[in-house]
Amino acid sequence: MPRVSQDHLAARRRQILDGARMCFTRYGYEGATVRRLEEATGLSRGAIFHHFRDKESLFLALAEDDARRMADVVAEQGLVQVMRDLLSSTGEHPADWLGTRLEVSRRLRTDPEFRARWAERSQQLTTATRKRLLWQREAGNLRDDVSIDVLTSYLELVLEGLVSHLAMGLPADDLEPVLDVVEESVRRHRGRAATAADERSGTENEEQNISGAR
Amino acid sequence: MPRVSQDHLAARRRQILDGARMCFTRYGYEGATVRRLEEATGLSRGAIFHHFRDKESLFLALAEDDARRMADVVAEQGLVQVMRDLLSSTGEHPADWLGTRLEVSRRLRTDPEFRARWAERSQQLTTATRKRLLWQREAGNLRDDVSIDVLTSYLELVLEGLVSHLAMGLPADDLEPVLDVVEESVRRHRGRAATAADERSGTENEEQNISGAR
Repeated sequence: MPRVSQDHLAARRRQILDGARMCFTRYGYEGATVRRLEEATGLSRGAIFHHFRDKESLFLALAEDDARRMADVVAEQGLVQVMRDLLSSTGEHPADWLGTRLEVSRRLRTDPEFRARWAERSQQLTTATRKRLLWQREAGNLRDDVSIDVLTSYLELVLEGLVSHLAMGLPADDLEPVLDVVEESVRRHRGRAATAADERSGTENEEQNISGAR
Repeated sequence: MPRVSQDHLAARRRQILDGARMCFTRYGYEGATVRRLEEATGLSRGAIFHHFRDKESLFLALAEDDARRMADVVAEQGLVQVMRDLLSSTGEHPADWLGTRLEVSRRLRTDPEFRARWAERSQQLTTATRKRLLWQREAGNLRDDVSIDVLTSYLELVLEGLVSHLAMGLPADDLEPVLDVVEESVRRHRGRAATAADERSGTENEEQNISGAR
């Protein structure tokens, strides 16, 4: 296929995903009708379903796209940073993947078939988290008395709690220090990293930003 | 009111709550029709709505009842124990309040009016958690570098993640060690509680069950 067509296809696909994302976030999966998807993307149903077999495929492509972007943040900065982004972007500018993520959570609860299809896709976030933690352990930043698998599950459980918390519309402005606790609890223990004297002098707090889950 | 009538009323109320709990767990709030509530409680709609104004009031009474029982466990054993109970009772014998709790989570997400009514009731779990943590701090079991409010929010966030995790039907058999990490992260730091030599000898692990969030 000539280069120009490929670029065109990719751009069109991008246009559909971006419009669909807004549409799913605003109306939910069920409420995102074909007519609304047309409005949101500025394209006809023919054009949309030329690129994606059906609404389900479109939604899964979107969720996969978001999972990949989250995995990229995890690879660079860790899963706790994904949570911090989520916090700092609520209110006026919610992280654009929050809507998709909430919809994924809801459908996982109510739709066993979706659960199976999603399982493969969600794997990449877990993989990225595990890889990041392994790298941190090798760098000596991670606690070494708990397995990488347990720490990965721990961080994923907190992320799920955070998504649920935000979905329920509970106040989130006091959660930054909670994420500090989370981050610190996967880090190398202070008792091992520092002497008692270091601890009393407060050195450990200055280390906060360079270690652990980030 | 004579004693016998009071006992009778309390027993009848209990009968309705127990039946309704099964009904809501099985069919969800919307699916728990009056006919199904009659079947589940073995009582007529007249008898049911003599005790509770409407379905909404019945559900709230149930949620409140469960919140009180959770608060009792928190007072005795801490919020992490509530989570452990939740884990150990999934599968064949789910904790009987899980159904209600899931329904509460769902309605909080979708029903702003319910959110307001629930806010007052959910306060008692927060209060019980805070009180327990204060008591643990006074006993010297709790870390003292993070405020009680932050630790309370942290534990509640993890609980919400766990409820969400179970609601999505994700595997829970590997979460016990994750809760160990959670419990340990609110406890007094090892670096402060024990010398490096104690740590190497593993003394800290033997302390696991007597301290922290339990």
